[in-house]
Amino acid sequence: MSGKVRARVPWGTFDAEEVRALYDDYAAALDAGDHAAWLDLFIDDASYVVVPLENVERGLPLATIRCESRGMLADRVDALVTTQFLARRITRHVITAVRPVGGGTGDRLETTASFLLLETIEGADTRVQCAGTYDDIVVVTAAGLRFAGKRAIYDAGLVPTSMAALL
Amino acid sequence: MSGKVRARVPWGTFDAEEVRALYDDYAAALDAGDHAAWLDLFIDDASYVVVPLENVERGLPLATIRCESRGMLADRVDALVTTQFLARRITRHVITAVRPVGGGTGDRLETTASFLLLETIEGADTRVQCAGTYDDIVVVTAAGLRFAGKRAIYDAGLVPTSMAALL
Amino acid sequence: MSGKVRARVPWGTFDAEEVRALYDDYAAALDAGDHAAWLDLFIDDASYVVVPLENVERGLPLATIRCESRGMLADRVDALVTTQFLARRITRHVITAVRPVGGGTGDRLETTASFLLLETIEGADTRVQCAGTYDDIVVVTAAGLRFAGKRAIYDAGLVPTSMAALL
Repeated sequence: MSGKVRARVPWGTFDAEEVRALYDDYAAALDAGDHAAWLDLFIDDASYVVVPLENVERGLPLATIRCESRGMLADRVDALVTTQFLARRITRHVITAVRPVGGGTGDRLETTASFLLLETIEGADTRVQCAGTYDDIVVVTAAGLRFAGKRAIYDAGLVPTSMAALL
Repeated sequence: MSGKVRARVPWGTFDAEEVRALYDDYAAALDAGDHAAWLDLFIDDASYVVVPLENVERGLPLATIRCESRGMLADRVDALVTTQFLARRITRHVITAVRPVGGGTGDRLETTASFLLLETIEGADTRVQCAGTYDDIVVVTAAGLRFAGKRAIYDAGLVPTSMAALL
Repeated sequence: MSGKVRARVPWGTFDAEEVRALYDDYAAALDAGDHAAWLDLFIDDASYVVVPLENVERGLPLATIRCESRGMLADRVDALVTTQFLARRITRHVITAVRPVGGGTGDRLETTASFLLLETIEGADTRVQCAGTYDDIVVVTAAGLRFAGKRAIYDAGLVPTSMAALL
């Protein structure tokens, strides 16, 4: 692969520690299966997109998940929880390399980060489900930092069945 | 999985960077096989428990490892080292999402974190051994921050044979 | 394994956040396949060595990759890119536990860190490629922090075919 990384910009008015805390809370909420706490990390009109890297590179609009508001995202979560009723999956999101790559001068920061998702299905081994990058927009709200946009780009060309997981 | 994540509290009198350093030293000591340095990160009467998630959720008291002091933990390590004499394992602990979830006002902080354990057995591939969360108590001592309590909850319902690894 | 971990030293004149940012940029550049951005994180006469743990422990001089300057490293990257023309690999470097272990009083800091490399080959699952530790030298330059030396020690006794990946 030969591409171009988004260059780092200054944190600006944002505190690195607080931004990282947002990601840490994000992973913790998802892995505890606390969907209410997870949804609370998005603003009302946040966009949330999950897309394979190949589609991004080819400029294809097709996404695995595309929600244009927190309400849509909440509906999607309900659907997922219902689907997974029979086979429980425990997830573990490992998020690293949180980097400021745009904005930062006002109340809006663009960030990228790496994620690794592990999954344990009851009675089976823990295994790597997927890895990828986040392409996000973090904003300042009265309640603290929140995601105004999140695009999870996973390292794959195919859409595996179990990509039903939230990234 | 549908649960409840422990909510973040302020770092209080603790410095986020120092707490994270404690975890980094913890992983580095374990992965170098430096058990003396690892034991030194616990206070004398620290408790150390390794338990599968299923047991925690069902309220079962059974734990894979339960030590009520650093002395017991040292004995346990000796036993493990002896057992592993024939098949050497190299471990790699990836610890992320260190979060303050209680205390922080005095010399005691409750933290959670995510861990991922990889293992390489000589001549074989590196593979994921397990993942999970730490539920810890960090205290201030004259020698710096130390663990007064650590509970490693791994994402599994079964106790794999090789969970002889230290988490 | 029973070894000795390199003890932590103070960050000294270095800022923990900036050093971590160097590693985050390193991982992001490699995983975007942006080799120019990656090479830019080394000084001109930087050394870059990739070596299996077993060789380090036995004191064997043999390394998988050994470059004594950024120029040599650039040549090596060109060779790799050519080799990988047919089977594209997407990598994901997870770097944690960045620790200061020497220097720090002037413009030179010795650091260690843990890495985990995941690889996705087009159309296949994401899998763990290897894990290990970095043994690095970070220096202050007019352009910011850079690597003057990097030794990637991977947890293996054998040299897998695909260790053609950059660590």
